[in-house]
Amino acid sequence: MMKTDSTKDTSIERFPRPAVAVDLVIFTVLDTDLKILLIQRGQAPHEGDWALPGGFVRVGDGVIEQGESVEEAAHRELEEETGLPRGAAYLEQLYTFGDPYRDPRMRVISIAWYALVRPDLAPLVTAGSDAAAASWCSLSELPPLAFDHNHIVQTAIERIRGKIDYAPVAFELVPPTFTVAELRQVFEAIHATAYDRGNFRRRFKRMLDNGLIEQAPGKRQTASKPARVYRFNRRH
Amino acid sequence: MMKTDSTKDTSIERFPRPAVAVDLVIFTVLDTDLKILLIQRGQAPHEGDWALPGGFVRVGDGVIEQGESVEEAAHRELEEETGLPRGAAYLEQLYTFGDPYRDPRMRVISIAWYALVRPDLAPLVTAGSDAAAASWCSLSELPPLAFDHNHIVQTAIERIRGKIDYAPVAFELVPPTFTVAELRQVFEAIHATAYDRGNFRRRFKRMLDNGLIEQAPGKRQTASKPARVYRFNRRH
Repeated sequence: MMKTDSTKDTSIERFPRPAVAVDLVIFTVLDTDLKILLIQRGQAPHEGDWALPGGFVRVGDGVIEQGESVEEAAHRELEEETGLPRGAAYLEQLYTFGDPYRDPRMRVISIAWYALVRPDLAPLVTAGSDAAAASWCSLSELPPLAFDHNHIVQTAIERIRGKIDYAPVAFELVPPTFTVAELRQVFEAIHATAYDRGNFRRRFKRMLDNGLIEQAPGKRQTASKPARVYRFNRRH
Repeated sequence: MMKTDSTKDTSIERFPRPAVAVDLVIFTVLDTDLKILLIQRGQAPHEGDWALPGGFVRVGDGVIEQGESVEEAAHRELEEETGLPRGAAYLEQLYTFGDPYRDPRMRVISIAWYALVRPDLAPLVTAGSDAAAASWCSLSELPPLAFDHNHIVQTAIERIRGKIDYAPVAFELVPPTFTVAELRQVFEAIHATAYDRGNFRRRFKRMLDNGLIEQAPGKRQTASKPARVYRFNRRH
C-alpha cells in the first residue's frame, strides 16, 4: 500500500506527458430536433471528417506562466467556436476521455464538456461561419466522427437524458419565455420520443404548482390560437 | 469562428504539456460515519500533510508505447492504495481539476475519481499499511489537505449526496446483506443528518415493493432482537 501519491516521484518532470485538450458537445433544439454543432476538419488526421469543436488547454511554460484553468479553456473554446458571449450558453464538464490510442499521432487526453444553447441564440452561431466548416447536425443524422467523438457525443446524450428529469436542463434549451408545447418539444427532442400531451400538461402543472416555472406576461401567437407563455424561476 | 480544433496546430508537439494525475476520494461508512482514505505525504511540497491517494497517468513515450487509459490509471491506483482486488470497490470519474497553480511545482491536471468501499472490506484496507501513513478519516474531522484536495473532497461529497436518492450509491456502502437500520445509517452518514425511522421504513418498503431490494435468507443478531436482512437486487 501507499506506494504512490501525486507527487512522490521527483523525477516526474522527465516523464513523458500527454497533450490535454477540451472538446465540446454543443447542443441546441431546432425544428423540434436535438442538434449538435460539428466542424469539418481541415487537415490530417481525419481530414474532411466531421468532429467536435475543441482545442488544447493552454499550459504555459510551467515556470513563469502556468496557462489557463480547464474551465477557462472550455469557456474560451465555446466563445471562439460559437461567437456567443460568455454566459450565453450553459456549460458543464462531462467526462475526461483518455484511451491511449484515441488520437493516432500522439497521446491526447480530452476533457469533454457539454453546452446547451437556447434555440433563439442558435441561428447566431452559424451566421458568421463558413457553412461547409460548421453546422448544426441532427443527432438522428450523425455521421461517423473523427477520433472517439461519436463515443463522446453518446456519453453527452446519456448525461442530459439522465439529468432532464431532476435538473433544469430543459430550461437551457427553450427561449426565455416558452409555451407548454415548446417545453414539451424539448423533452421530446432529448428523449427522441413523443410525449402524451395530457400527461405532459399535468407534469407542467406540477412544475407551476411547486414554483419551478411561473407565468410570464403576454401571449404567443401559435398556429391555432394565442398561447400562454411561461418562464423558468431561477430563484426556485 | 472555427479557429481551432483539437488537432489543427501541427506544431502542438512543441507546446508545453501538463502532467496528468488521477486522485481518489475513497469513501466508506464505518461506525455510522462517512469516512475517506487519506495518506500522509512523505515529501515536499506539503510534506507531512494529509492528502488524497493518487498518482500520475502512465503516458508512455507516445511513439512505441502510449501508456494506460485514464480508467486503467484509476483502477491501478485504487488497487495499489487499498490492496483490494479489482472490482471490489465501486469506482466512478468525478471531475477533472486543472487550476494553473494547484500544484506549486508544475502544471498538474488531476482527473479525480470517487470510490465506494463496503464497510466489511474497509478494515482490510489499512491492515497492511503503516498506520501513520494511511488512515480512514471521518469527514467531520477532515484536516486541511495538501493542494486543492479539500475542494476535491467537497465536490465528491456533493456528488454522492446528489446521487444517493436516484442511483444505487447506498448499496455500495453496506455489506452484501443489510438490515433496515444499516441502510438507514448509510443515508444518515452521507447526508450527515438523522432520518426519521418511520419515514425511512416507509421508503425502505417502497424499495422492496418496486424490487430494488429483496429479502435475503437468515437474520442478523442485533442489540435488541434478530433483524431481517435484505440485499440489493442488481437485476433491477
